[in-house]
Amino acid sequence: MDEIVALAKRRGFIFQSSEIYGGIGGFFDYGPLGAVLKRNVKDAWWRENVELRDDVVAFDSSIVMHPRTWEASGHVAAFHDKLVDCRNCKHRFRADHLPSLEKCPDCGMTGTLTEPRNFNLMMKTAIGPMEDTSAQAYLRPETAQGIFVNFKNIYQSARKKPPFGIAQIGKSFRNEITPGNFTFRVREFEQAELEFFVPQDGRDLEWFNQWVTARKKWYSDYGVRPDRLRFYELTPEERPFYAKAGIDVEYLFPWGWGELESIAHRGTYDLDRHIEYSGKDLQFFDEATKQKYTPILIESSAGMDRTTLTMLIDAYERETIVDGEKTTERTVLRFHPKIAPVQAGVFPLARNKPELVERAQSIERGLRAHCRTQYDEGNVGQLYRRQDEIGTPFCLMIDYDTLGDATVTVRERDSMKQDRVGQDALEGYLRERL
Amino acid sequence: MDEIVALAKRRGFIFQSSEIYGGIGGFFDYGPLGAVLKRNVKDAWWRENVELRDDVVAFDSSIVMHPRTWEASGHVAAFHDKLVDCRNCKHRFRADHLPSLEKCPDCGMTGTLTEPRNFNLMMKTAIGPMEDTSAQAYLRPETAQGIFVNFKNIYQSARKKPPFGIAQIGKSFRNEITPGNFTFRVREFEQAELEFFVPQDGRDLEWFNQWVTARKKWYSDYGVRPDRLRFYELTPEERPFYAKAGIDVEYLFPWGWGELESIAHRGTYDLDRHIEYSGKDLQFFDEATKQKYTPILIESSAGMDRTTLTMLIDAYERETIVDGEKTTERTVLRFHPKIAPVQAGVFPLARNKPELVERAQSIERGLRAHCRTQYDEGNVGQLYRRQDEIGTPFCLMIDYDTLGDATVTVRERDSMKQDRVGQDALEGYLRERL
Repeated sequence: MDEIVALAKRRGFIFQSSEIYGGIGGFFDYGPLGAVLKRNVKDAWWRENVELRDDVVAFDSSIVMHPRTWEASGHVAAFHDKLVDCRNCKHRFRADHLPSLEKCPDCGMTGTLTEPRNFNLMMKTAIGPMEDTSAQAYLRPETAQGIFVNFKNIYQSARKKPPFGIAQIGKSFRNEITPGNFTFRVREFEQAELEFFVPQDGRDLEWFNQWVTARKKWYSDYGVRPDRLRFYELTPEERPFYAKAGIDVEYLFPWGWGELESIAHRGTYDLDRHIEYSGKDLQFFDEATKQKYTPILIESSAGMDRTTLTMLIDAYERETIVDGEKTTERTVLRFHPKIAPVQAGVFPLARNKPELVERAQSIERGLRAHCRTQYDEGNVGQLYRRQDEIGTPFCLMIDYDTLGDATVTVRERDSMKQDRVGQDALEGYLRERL
Repeated sequence: MDEIVALAKRRGFIFQSSEIYGGIGGFFDYGPLGAVLKRNVKDAWWRENVELRDDVVAFDSSIVMHPRTWEASGHVAAFHDKLVDCRNCKHRFRADHLPSLEKCPDCGMTGTLTEPRNFNLMMKTAIGPMEDTSAQAYLRPETAQGIFVNFKNIYQSARKKPPFGIAQIGKSFRNEITPGNFTFRVREFEQAELEFFVPQDGRDLEWFNQWVTARKKWYSDYGVRPDRLRFYELTPEERPFYAKAGIDVEYLFPWGWGELESIAHRGTYDLDRHIEYSGKDLQFFDEATKQKYTPILIESSAGMDRTTLTMLIDAYERETIVDGEKTTERTVLRFHPKIAPVQAGVFPLARNKPELVERAQSIERGLRAHCRTQYDEGNVGQLYRRQDEIGTPFCLMIDYDTLGDATVTVRERDSMKQDRVGQDALEGYLRERL
């Protein structure tokens, strides 16, 4: 993990937030390559779950919502950790992290710890110029509620009827007591949530299973190693009372299994609560049958920072290359070509030959509209090493032959095999393989 | 404007946030079409300013940063409005909105108003379980500072040297006293910021002008009416002391000119401030010349919600169609094809003919991977009206001839002209025109 964190910083994937001011716990920034990687992961989710389907519509709600939303959702009453304070040293602890409530683990005093008190994980803010309590609001701890409160506006304006889904990707905030494991447990994170509403026709578990299959396929399509991924089925005791089924998608991180996504059958709980708290009619009215009902909800909620971290860890490999008697080492990120931040590196064989530099730059410019390219120059071995380390699937070397017969050496990242491809055929060659 | 707001709600572009709970001032949600429209606007910005350039890198920093950032940036000291309270009725006013400080405009009492006090526009929150002041943080009021504090990490990891830029799109928050004009003045908004760092070589104003030209071209490429767009040049008095040049990009909204974007020459102010406050070396070190200097900054900062609103308003038209003696009216959104939420509507001529429905659905499915499609069915006139109202550039009608000769009627939104296109040629026909 230390190697990956170091690589992430060195090559511009992930930085600690506000590092020059000593950082701020639980917040991270995505550097030039990381921002593109995360964007690609989100786009891959969006393409599969929204654009390529005709039964899912897009949505994008605000981070700050009316505070009553969080009373209805249950987050005000029940979204908390239990904390204990030391009256002597003023330190605060999570009750479930303390071996006992007798003695403060920090200052060592006995009998100074308070009773456990609830600490709500929602981050608060205040809206508007009035300083009374009505102005208090929260940063959403999940994007899903924005979909639920808008259910009627959405299905009416989009003219959709169950079964259909509503998807959104956006930031959420949780005031984690103990952020950690790099970008795994953070206070500001991005979720991709799909809320799929199905009729009350007895096929709800079928739909649940269809979504589990679809999500399995997604991880597999993007090359996540099957032996590091598991779909853990929640027991009835582990599920909320209203849920008929639940699956946690987990990845085997260097520190153990960690949750990437939850797929849940949530019954009619969420819409029912908002109907109760708002007094508004959020049921679905079927024009055809003239029937009114609360649709059953199947939810897939995936963490985009965790998925991005998974892609980074899963792709990471240190490889020993044996070439005759010579052995060398390389670090390689085996990103799926669709999510690799750079898809094609383009270099001149020698940086002091203007005709090679010019040709390489013109080839890079030509390809830029079709894939994610990067022009670089330097020593050949170094160029390949640098691109391997950022997971670039193809490297294009422009040499003296290129000037003559207009062919280019294309080197593939994983096999390190080289192909000679005509300059005019490059776009098609790459399109096919990316 | 009322018509556009009503259309935006009815067709699923923009909803008031948390409407079922009475709404929350200054926050909005993007419905199924609005979410796609805004996404397209952001993608268009990103493509032009990041993907198609080799001198701009991507970035994505957190909303919550170390609070010291906002001391360095000047936001803690100087980002405020002056407010006045009435001691009698407890109402609060912006001092610059009051005709005088004598008499409360609300309760009518004289001598009850307090002296104007500073009200900081940054939204506060608290981080971590400790409740002391060290845990206070802010929601960023602009994305730019995330770039400045990371300047060194970014240029080193990306191996870039000035002139080069860093771009990011993300949410920012400002506790506006008087949000209004739909999504124009809001408390939660999305910015697209480009920070372009140039050498101290006397060409900084040239770079400033290049960016003004590039941004002009962008608005023009996406079809914003030139008579409603202006690039207002700030006078030296209107610019901050450190800025050598500044342009406000403004659009003529129904309520008057409003700012969409600011393009500013910011000198070395921002990096200098962070160098001073952090004590860290954020200067650029040029390996080639062994020289160290603070690059000059050219900034383009555009509001994505305002740009999306501009696209909606600019596209809106009520048109009277004269056809012989018959005149009809239609509402049409003349979106640029690249940003239109739906690019091709596909319909069967009759919804009760399974062979037409099947063919239309199969054509829609086939096109879905290539453009944004929507299948719909109903009465022909109604279908066209609905697609005009959401700005769909092309409508494909599948009729009995389609079953025979495999051709489809393609109707263009603006001219309403119809073309007969072979089913196999549809993808190419649309690609060319979209």
